[in-house]
Amino acid sequence: MNRRNFIQTTVAGSAIPFMGHAMQNDKPKTDRVRLGFIGVGLRGRNHLNVAAKSADVDVVAICDIDPDAIKRAQAVLTRAGKKEAVAYSKDPKDYLNLLKRDDIDGVVIATPWELHVPMSVDSMRAGKYTAVEVSATVTLQESWDLVNTFEETGSHCMILENVCYRRDVMAVLNMVRQGMFGDLQYGHCGYQHDLRNVKFNDGKQAYGGGVEFGEKGFSEAHWRTQHSVDRNGDLYPTHGLGPVAHWMDINRGNKFNYLTSMATSSKGLHKYIVDKGGPDHPNAKVKFKLGDIVTTMIQCENGQNIVVIHDTNLPRPYSLCFRAQGTEGIWMDDNKMIYLENKSPKPHQWEPFDKYQKEYDHPLWKKFESDAQNAGHGGIDFFVLRAFIESIKNKVTPPMDVYDAAAWSAISPLSELSIARGSTAVEIPDFTRGKWKTNKRIFGLNDQY
Amino acid sequence: MNRRNFIQTTVAGSAIPFMGHAMQNDKPKTDRVRLGFIGVGLRGRNHLNVAAKSADVDVVAICDIDPDAIKRAQAVLTRAGKKEAVAYSKDPKDYLNLLKRDDIDGVVIATPWELHVPMSVDSMRAGKYTAVEVSATVTLQESWDLVNTFEETGSHCMILENVCYRRDVMAVLNMVRQGMFGDLQYGHCGYQHDLRNVKFNDGKQAYGGGVEFGEKGFSEAHWRTQHSVDRNGDLYPTHGLGPVAHWMDINRGNKFNYLTSMATSSKGLHKYIVDKGGPDHPNAKVKFKLGDIVTTMIQCENGQNIVVIHDTNLPRPYSLCFRAQGTEGIWMDDNKMIYLENKSPKPHQWEPFDKYQKEYDHPLWKKFESDAQNAGHGGIDFFVLRAFIESIKNKVTPPMDVYDAAAWSAISPLSELSIARGSTAVEIPDFTRGKWKTNKRIFGLNDQY
Repeated sequence: MNRRNFIQTTVAGSAIPFMGHAMQNDKPKTDRVRLGFIGVGLRGRNHLNVAAKSADVDVVAICDIDPDAIKRAQAVLTRAGKKEAVAYSKDPKDYLNLLKRDDIDGVVIATPWELHVPMSVDSMRAGKYTAVEVSATVTLQESWDLVNTFEETGSHCMILENVCYRRDVMAVLNMVRQGMFGDLQYGHCGYQHDLRNVKFNDGKQAYGGGVEFGEKGFSEAHWRTQHSVDRNGDLYPTHGLGPVAHWMDINRGNKFNYLTSMATSSKGLHKYIVDKGGPDHPNAKVKFKLGDIVTTMIQCENGQNIVVIHDTNLPRPYSLCFRAQGTEGIWMDDNKMIYLENKSPKPHQWEPFDKYQKEYDHPLWKKFESDAQNAGHGGIDFFVLRAFIESIKNKVTPPMDVYDAAAWSAISPLSELSIARGSTAVEIPDFTRGKWKTNKRIFGLNDQY
Repeated sequence: MNRRNFIQTTVAGSAIPFMGHAMQNDKPKTDRVRLGFIGVGLRGRNHLNVAAKSADVDVVAICDIDPDAIKRAQAVLTRAGKKEAVAYSKDPKDYLNLLKRDDIDGVVIATPWELHVPMSVDSMRAGKYTAVEVSATVTLQESWDLVNTFEETGSHCMILENVCYRRDVMAVLNMVRQGMFGDLQYGHCGYQHDLRNVKFNDGKQAYGGGVEFGEKGFSEAHWRTQHSVDRNGDLYPTHGLGPVAHWMDINRGNKFNYLTSMATSSKGLHKYIVDKGGPDHPNAKVKFKLGDIVTTMIQCENGQNIVVIHDTNLPRPYSLCFRAQGTEGIWMDDNKMIYLENKSPKPHQWEPFDKYQKEYDHPLWKKFESDAQNAGHGGIDFFVLRAFIESIKNKVTPPMDVYDAAAWSAISPLSELSIARGSTAVEIPDFTRGKWKTNKRIFGLNDQY
């Protein structure tokens, strides 16, 4: 993309004209952080809950088009002893009024996927530290929009990839960096989660009870399911890919080069509708493009391969199927086992990971274990929002930055492209424009980020 | 390939002119089977051991260029109470004299990979039932050679894929055919076996003790390792792919359509040489083409995907990483767990496979468990040779036929091609030339085959 296209795109894509403001990294440090929340549905309220419990955070404003969500969000605040926030709920553009406030340092965006980039771009142009839920972007152009907006404005955009803070994958990160796997050669990961009762519900409850989606669906069924109708690709790559990208120093000494994706036929969602709603339910006529399982292979600059599985349409136990393998050992998530050539007691035999989990627990977990305990998803929601808050306080780049958001999320549209072309290989753009060669690690360096 | 090329190839490729003989399926049934063995090294003697213990088998002749292997093979026979076989050991072409004998019904070939097809073609042209070790073929042309030779001569060629008889994958086959996984959508498999001490030894023992290969290596190190020098692809796909192909009725109502493969860089073998032999060992200068891990995705005609991993250069516990997943459930090898939507007690939760293993044990295993006990690789070597013997006795097509041998083995050269072309998608030929549409299942039908 040339400079001319870039300006057209970002100007066209944003409702907020960029008038120039000091780069965030040049601003003075602060002790308190003032946050605004765009989207306070189920996911947004998870983050709000962490913020409400943080003594150094003021929640200034919240925004959602659903008045019930606003009500529930205010209750989260008051239950935690904070005062109610100013609410923006007038219409889908009311978030722009939230962004105009000059008493907000950072904005947390937890809205439907297709709103992530327009809102993030507006937030960055308004000079806010911006945190956006996963996947950050839906299209390749959107990944460029995020990067270009950051480079124009100096406003940071952090992808809220909570799984990067999962205790086991952080211990493995610790071990990878200490060279315990030798040279890392292979990563395996994915999003394997039976989402059928998330994609369909009765329009009243968030999970199951019916086979409605879209206009008649509630919560994620209201907007997320349509992606399974319209798209065949890895719709949700970052939960798996984020941790592996950190292990492999993607964008910092390494990069994604190309990928190829393959999809099975699509049977699971239609079957679910027929099984639960009957063959005459109107949704039994819907054709879903999304293959039941989508597998993607990524070739990295430094010679590693990453396999990413997307598996959300079939009955199965939850698993992100992590695997880290190098020239001196292998760890696997599914059996919770490890084998290290120079440490494991018996050759060719697994040993339980527990011992290593304790010994190589990441400094962040050691320090904040008790704070994390009551946050969502086993504590990882605490760490991911905390990292955003700390970045704002210290006026530094967040530990998962706009280039991570762009590159990890781009696997989704690129996997669609590969599948549409018969699984041909597709180049993955270098969103850092060469800076991966000199960029230094920023994630999980110590007990601060 | 047109008819003209086909004739040139098969005639040029074979040392035995085909003079015509009755199609094997038209010959009368027999009660006893007379076998010849070409290649009685470690692998060949596994098969010889099963044959020697079979009351209905006479081992007429054996062939190997290594006199020590001949001696050990004769000892296998006499220990089992059989008389010594006629030995062919003069030179690399002496196997042709074995094939000229008219008192041999079937020939078992367990030689280096690159000899499989030349010897199999000669054996088929000599009118013998032919059994060949895995992988059956090295090149795509060789897969066609096997098929064309069968179609010309009517002589069967069975691929000795013992893992197809593994007790768990056969129970899963049983369950797949009973529809317990619903429509099967996804298969995962591979050959994940740290072969470093097979690829390198001291020239005296078969496993380890040094970093020699080729001229100075013994047993498999003598010939197998060179493939890791010369080729980057899935060198050994059939142990994983055979069972999955049976689950998915490949060549019988379904077929492989195309694949794409990806390889990590190659570090493991070089590191092993340096670690064990020192940086000054001459083999430390060898450049290995084979990526440490090669992953292949296969798109099937009926919409399924298969992922195949080849992982033989790094330290790791052995695993063929099987996974069978359909619209109603999933089974995994690595954690030995299963989840069936309509049977498992708790939603979204694994249960141990043991119970299902007992309940859905394949009829073959139920009937022959005690016979299998002393055979190699946990009993599967018994079943695979037994199937060959029974096919000869009954003058029927063996349960893994020449089309299976051709298609499964072809994944190896096709994966090389995909990797060489930057992981682009590569078409997988239909070796049945359309007969997959009407071919019926032949494997694991009952307690006979």
